Amino acid sequence: MTPRRLSDQERLAWLRLARTETVGPVAFDHLLQRFGSAERALVALPDLARRAGRDSPLRPPPQAEVLQELDCGQRRGARLICACEPDFPPRLAALDPPPPPVLWALGRAELLPQPSLAIVGARIASAGGQRFARQLAAELGRHGYVVVSGLARGVDGAAHEGALATGTVAVLGGGVSDIYPPEHADLHARIAGEGGCIVSESAPDRRAQAKDFPRRNRIISGLSLGVVVVEAELKSGSLITARLAAEQGRDVFAVPGSPLDPRAKGPNDLIRQGAILCEGVEDVLRSLSGQAHLRERERPYAAEDEGADIDHDALREDIARLLSPTPVSRDELVRATHAPTSAVMAALVELALAERAELLPGGMVAGV
Amino acid sequence: MTPRRLSDQERLAWLRLARTETVGPVAFDHLLQRFGSAERALVALPDLARRAGRDSPLRPPPQAEVLQELDCGQRRGARLICACEPDFPPRLAALDPPPPPVLWALGRAELLPQPSLAIVGARIASAGGQRFARQLAAELGRHGYVVVSGLARGVDGAAHEGALATGTVAVLGGGVSDIYPPEHADLHARIAGEGGCIVSESAPDRRAQAKDFPRRNRIISGLSLGVVVVEAELKSGSLITARLAAEQGRDVFAVPGSPLDPRAKGPNDLIRQGAILCEGVEDVLRSLSGQAHLRERERPYAAEDEGADIDHDALREDIARLLSPTPVSRDELVRATHAPTSAVMAALVELALAERAELLPGGMVAGV
Repeated sequence: MTPRRLSDQERLAWLRLARTETVGPVAFDHLLQRFGSAERALVALPDLARRAGRDSPLRPPPQAEVLQELDCGQRRGARLICACEPDFPPRLAALDPPPPPVLWALGRAELLPQPSLAIVGARIASAGGQRFARQLAAELGRHGYVVVSGLARGVDGAAHEGALATGTVAVLGGGVSDIYPPEHADLHARIAGEGGCIVSESAPDRRAQAKDFPRRNRIISGLSLGVVVVEAELKSGSLITARLAAEQGRDVFAVPGSPLDPRAKGPNDLIRQGAILCEGVEDVLRSLSGQAHLRERERPYAAEDEGADIDHDALREDIARLLSPTPVSRDELVRATHAPTSAVMAALVELALAERAELLPGGMVAGV
Repeated sequence: MTPRRLSDQERLAWLRLARTETVGPVAFDHLLQRFGSAERALVALPDLARRAGRDSPLRPPPQAEVLQELDCGQRRGARLICACEPDFPPRLAALDPPPPPVLWALGRAELLPQPSLAIVGARIASAGGQRFARQLAAELGRHGYVVVSGLARGVDGAAHEGALATGTVAVLGGGVSDIYPPEHADLHARIAGEGGCIVSESAPDRRAQAKDFPRRNRIISGLSLGVVVVEAELKSGSLITARLAAEQGRDVFAVPGSPLDPRAKGPNDLIRQGAILCEGVEDVLRSLSGQAHLRERERPYAAEDEGADIDHDALREDIARLLSPTPVSRDELVRATHAPTSAVMAALVELALAERAELLPGGMVAGV
């Protein structure tokens, strides 16, 4: 459907649904499609979870709590952007699995839909690596690209600094007002001011937790046409961002380094796996010029007809029996049950709400 | 034909033909095929060149001069190995365009046919680059590979040093007794002694000239299953060796480096073009294990039947008219003249002997 701005009441419901436990982006997307609006999904939710076998009642957060989040964001000067709204960044909206339902933005939110590239890398980066990140960011800025990163120490900070003059987006694991690391307080303020935009899917005052960072990384790559990895040890967060970028169909660039430097292991390994070798801005521009800019995906946030002759409760329990801790794909379940995809998806979301199933990335599902 | 050891008289003729001006490897190979032996080719040569329009008489070097080269090599303790002989390295023999007709070998010539890898790189190499080359050479040696390089300063020297204990082959542009650079006199002596083998297609006492190095590089790659480029600036000899290796169907490995180091430009660029990223011996072994060892090519060093109904003089002049300073492929000339490939090749070699054509790498020909 066409992007539209939500009324205050719709926005409140949208945020309540987004903040309901066990409702991740996949379930959120499905519930909106199934019930046509967040408000109707909220009404249906407790019963849906109970019928699917949930032990404790599933309760969306009280309206007051969500009003408080909205109020807090407003006081901080941040804006809530819902995934159906016209200023939600289109590359992020196009993600599959679906994007986070909401984003808080502090600063120049108009940068978010612009063509952008992420630069990520080691927190304990070499002086050379930081210089490279700063220069590359400045040159990408000069060529009209917004530079996205994660405001971490090392490469991230250098990339933001290099692009302060042209526009940079910092994606945080915690809320947009959660300043971390402390020595980046000034950088945070400059980005939130004229330099760019601070973005997070968490509530504005929320302190970052370890589990927030993979979600943060998914936004970094999801906002960007490509991700440049400057220095990264094996098994680092930067490599996760690179993997997410590849899964999202975005370009992955890696800056090579000497085998004698452990921080080159990550980028060198990415190159071995097919990432584009990046020695400077030309390598990025060359690749992007060959790539049509991604189009906004039309996402059908509207109720769908469902096969009226399906016994949904029976199907749900059939599927529950098929699940085990070993993940299976949704498609496999569709084949096994001979049910329509939409009905299988409905059953899986119900089981997830009941904490009997876990919806995993890449269309996979595991029993709990 | 089956490899065979030449008699002293045949060997003398072979070397005389190889040392005749304008007789490069392509012409040598063709003349042997056409006349069945070097001796018969030598007899036919002057008339062939004259009839093809050569101004000054084409004279093979006097027998005394070639005997002197043989004598000098013997005094130096070197061995002459002709391309048809059983101990001519099979990977080199398999080259197309053909290998150099002769090799001088000083030291353990039995290393030449063994599985080997070349390590080449910058003369003014970084300490890290030299350490990497030395370690990689030592590890390749431990895995049973002979290490081939060019005895130059920097990476070459380090590679030889690393493989002295297991066996290393140094290919020189000048003769096997031409010690260059002077500070490698000791390394030269150790390789010629127990450490390995010094190899050259030049006469043993010949001083290296600039034009010898591309020929030297072709032997380095031709002896090897693959070439590892450690550090190299753009437009360096190491990149020529890498290109020759690729043309010869050998693996090209490149050791990545920081974009801030100009010596990484060469290897990084090779990786961008498809070379295998090499961070250590595992990357080399992984690639080689997937590659069947090259088989010795059966090379038909025997006279061929030629189309008896062809007017060779007319064909040669037709071809001469088709040539210009812009290189064309032999195949194109075959198509243009509707003549058999062997006849076109014969005409081209005659024109080359007459210095009216130049036989270029990759089956190309230019008019002179």
